[in-house]
Amino acid sequence: MADQTHHRRAGGRDGRRALRAAPMISLPTLVRDIPTYELLPAEAVELIHLESVKMLEEVGCEFRDEQALATWKAAGADVKGSRVHVDRAMLMELVGKIPSEFTLHARNPERTVKVGGKNSVFVPMYGAPYVRDLEDKRRYGSLQDLNNFHKLAYMAPQLHSSSSIICEPMEIPVPKRHLHIIQSALTYSDKPFMGVVTSKERAEDVMKMAGLVFGDDFVKDNPVLVSITNCNSPLVWDQTMLDAMRVYASHNQPLILAPFALCGASTSASAIGAVAQVNAEALVGLAFTQLIRAGSPQLYGQFMVTVDMKTGAPMGGTPEAAQMMFVMGQLARKYKLPWRTSGFHVGSKINDAQAGYESNMLMHAAILSGANYIWHSAGWLEAGLACGYSKFMTDCEQLSGWYKYAGGLKFDDFQDAMDAIREVGPAGHFLGTAHTLEHFEKAFFMPSIMDFNPYEQWSAEGSKTHDERGRDKAKAALAAYELPKMDEGIAQSLAAFVTKRERELPNLLS
Amino acid sequence: MADQTHHRRAGGRDGRRALRAAPMISLPTLVRDIPTYELLPAEAVELIHLESVKMLEEVGCEFRDEQALATWKAAGADVKGSRVHVDRAMLMELVGKIPSEFTLHARNPERTVKVGGKNSVFVPMYGAPYVRDLEDKRRYGSLQDLNNFHKLAYMAPQLHSSSSIICEPMEIPVPKRHLHIIQSALTYSDKPFMGVVTSKERAEDVMKMAGLVFGDDFVKDNPVLVSITNCNSPLVWDQTMLDAMRVYASHNQPLILAPFALCGASTSASAIGAVAQVNAEALVGLAFTQLIRAGSPQLYGQFMVTVDMKTGAPMGGTPEAAQMMFVMGQLARKYKLPWRTSGFHVGSKINDAQAGYESNMLMHAAILSGANYIWHSAGWLEAGLACGYSKFMTDCEQLSGWYKYAGGLKFDDFQDAMDAIREVGPAGHFLGTAHTLEHFEKAFFMPSIMDFNPYEQWSAEGSKTHDERGRDKAKAALAAYELPKMDEGIAQSLAAFVTKRERELPNLLS
Repeated sequence: MADQTHHRRAGGRDGRRALRAAPMISLPTLVRDIPTYELLPAEAVELIHLESVKMLEEVGCEFRDEQALATWKAAGADVKGSRVHVDRAMLMELVGKIPSEFTLHARNPERTVKVGGKNSVFVPMYGAPYVRDLEDKRRYGSLQDLNNFHKLAYMAPQLHSSSSIICEPMEIPVPKRHLHIIQSALTYSDKPFMGVVTSKERAEDVMKMAGLVFGDDFVKDNPVLVSITNCNSPLVWDQTMLDAMRVYASHNQPLILAPFALCGASTSASAIGAVAQVNAEALVGLAFTQLIRAGSPQLYGQFMVTVDMKTGAPMGGTPEAAQMMFVMGQLARKYKLPWRTSGFHVGSKINDAQAGYESNMLMHAAILSGANYIWHSAGWLEAGLACGYSKFMTDCEQLSGWYKYAGGLKFDDFQDAMDAIREVGPAGHFLGTAHTLEHFEKAFFMPSIMDFNPYEQWSAEGSKTHDERGRDKAKAALAAYELPKMDEGIAQSLAAFVTKRERELPNLLS
Repeated sequence: MADQTHHRRAGGRDGRRALRAAPMISLPTLVRDIPTYELLPAEAVELIHLESVKMLEEVGCEFRDEQALATWKAAGADVKGSRVHVDRAMLMELVGKIPSEFTLHARNPERTVKVGGKNSVFVPMYGAPYVRDLEDKRRYGSLQDLNNFHKLAYMAPQLHSSSSIICEPMEIPVPKRHLHIIQSALTYSDKPFMGVVTSKERAEDVMKMAGLVFGDDFVKDNPVLVSITNCNSPLVWDQTMLDAMRVYASHNQPLILAPFALCGASTSASAIGAVAQVNAEALVGLAFTQLIRAGSPQLYGQFMVTVDMKTGAPMGGTPEAAQMMFVMGQLARKYKLPWRTSGFHVGSKINDAQAGYESNMLMHAAILSGANYIWHSAGWLEAGLACGYSKFMTDCEQLSGWYKYAGGLKFDDFQDAMDAIREVGPAGHFLGTAHTLEHFEKAFFMPSIMDFNPYEQWSAEGSKTHDERGRDKAKAALAAYELPKMDEGIAQSLAAFVTKRERELPNLLS
């Protein structure tokens, strides 16, 4: 494990002192107090649903795994070769077993969150091979970068998870990487985290490591991590994903069943056609999890971006991405399922105006569509190929704004505010009123990376872009970081497990 | 008038040829085909309304103008000194005379638009003393800059107006500035435009110039320009604004009655309190316009930003700005009034990630709140102190996205899309299907300033930021510009009017 003592560098002392004065806080689960946006009328949502279930009955879905096919057969589905046809009654009966809300436990109970219903949690990005670093250089991710991002995820009050592979620790051999990823997430942060799904064995290692921290008995039944299983659009669930599903669902650990759709390439060039297809893929995956363990918590959802039809490149914050999100939210509510979407998954290579436009386009839709597990809410650049330190910090600040937005408008001081107008009268000013003095600190969103100072002050401070201010903020946060408490015995057993498995596993993929 | 031949510079020939091949197009009025977002329940909207009308009855509003006070008295309002108390019955009767939709005529009938109902029009910014120029330098605006922005407004298919004072031509003496502003708007573009409100005499000059272009008879009754009259919050309408109202409303030219509220300073530190106050200020102004000319078209609306409670600086794309916009939209629908909001009015000094986050925050709310006249939809930086060439172009591209977004999801090819999935089947791909070939060009938003190319290609092209690409686009557009047709006699009479008034008016404010 790289650089456990990185935070003890010179200059960090003042930051640490400030931190001790203000102990690490985390915002509670965001409870939305605003209406969801219903883009389509209920009949149109029903029409999409009917086309999805018809597709699963008529076309069916491939399950490229003997064990899964046997499971489907035993459950009474119509299996022809590797093609599984599930009728709508069976499908909806299985999907109906999934709880509409669940508790996701953190190793520090203060960071435990609720997922589903009116709750939304924000989760950092996942899977970047590259980072855009503290000096604005793009390079491969390392374990030290991953440690850093887990530290930043721990310190950001707005984030409810440490994710896992925020960036890939590229210097570590692939067969051993998962060990260091999970150790880093569990050590540098005390929030809920995410699994690894690239093989059955690795998923089992993840569950063993979770067991060391939470207790084997606890993780048999209580959700502590969330894992992603992607359908191969169109309509294929492959063995790797099904293996991961079996490991995690049998432990009652929630999966995200969200096809990764490049609309126009892996779906038709129709936003609604894409939604109907992705819905079918998600539903049949969700149904399968209930054959593994009935009643296990799962997340419905989507990752849908359009592709540039000239180059095939995935796009980010486009209007269609927002529209499809709204419809997926409507479907999730129809099925009474907790659901996942993504927040800030932009196409821009850097944290510039494009990234800002895209980010807000997507998060705005995520919040208004009532998403519960809002992934990729910090760091994402380049359609997921890079995690940016600056982007991570600027995204987190934006999340504070979304707390305000989704908290809705409060009427509790409305009469006081009206009295303030009477007190002030025409042509008066409000800065000295009792109401203002009482409310000014909390009335409005007050960011610190966003800069609203006059031009002259901003110039005097170096005419910094938002991106530069984000990097400054990341450096300051890392300098102030302190490791969250972990029982020494647990830390040792985790380290011992990593050492043992490192010896057992090969350096090269066979 | 500066640089009428600026577009004939070297290098423009190829651009002009391309333009001749593809004649100047403009998008029709955006007709929204999506639901509005109703943030508050109807009872809460009613409660705000009731507090607003009570405020006008009990506190009243200052009208600092003898003529206006006489008008109110004659109409039966309770006038004490300069304080006008209007009871709710009279108020709502007057407001009820305003048409819910009107036609705004352009000198080229192809650019005439509808305002109100499900229609939205996008209008560039207004009032910047500074520009951020084509070389990314901040400096005072000039007449040549203003000409350029009118050219760009003309060329942008997404914009439905040329605005007027996009930036201030700072080298021209203030008493003569309005002449050159209106001449520039009417010459370099053929879209609807905006008035000048800084004095009665200037407003009269604007109407005379409009008369030269449209015919005096036409502009007596037909809307061709929109003007802004701001209430001095809290609760003061001053003589300058009332003078402008009389000139324009008597010609049936619509006014925007949108208090410019710095929430927390000119209103209480309560988002709902601010809305109730701004609503009262707008309603009493609207009522007054109907005493000038009953049935004249008017725009309800708001410009509300929060202020940084530490420095007093205005902020831009904050969550509260979005929330207040949603409520103003609900009130506008309650009153059945066409209404104005702003789209991209950010606080950021430059076109960076902050500008992007802020811009989308505000435009997203503007579209979902069903605004009809979406002002400040191109160019705005620094809380309105600067107009950026790059920001202008990147905003315009974003507007194309909002057309897609607000156009809603189309079901017309849904069955074809489902057939495409049947044709492709599990594990297939869609790029070669008949459906894809038929739809790929128009299925999804395809921007050109936003960059979704792979990292390697983007690097090879100079690793440009979104801001840099915006500047490139502005340069290319200006090189390709050609003057829209105008009858030579009209152009001469406009020029003669400007010359005559230039001689009559002083160079210094008296």
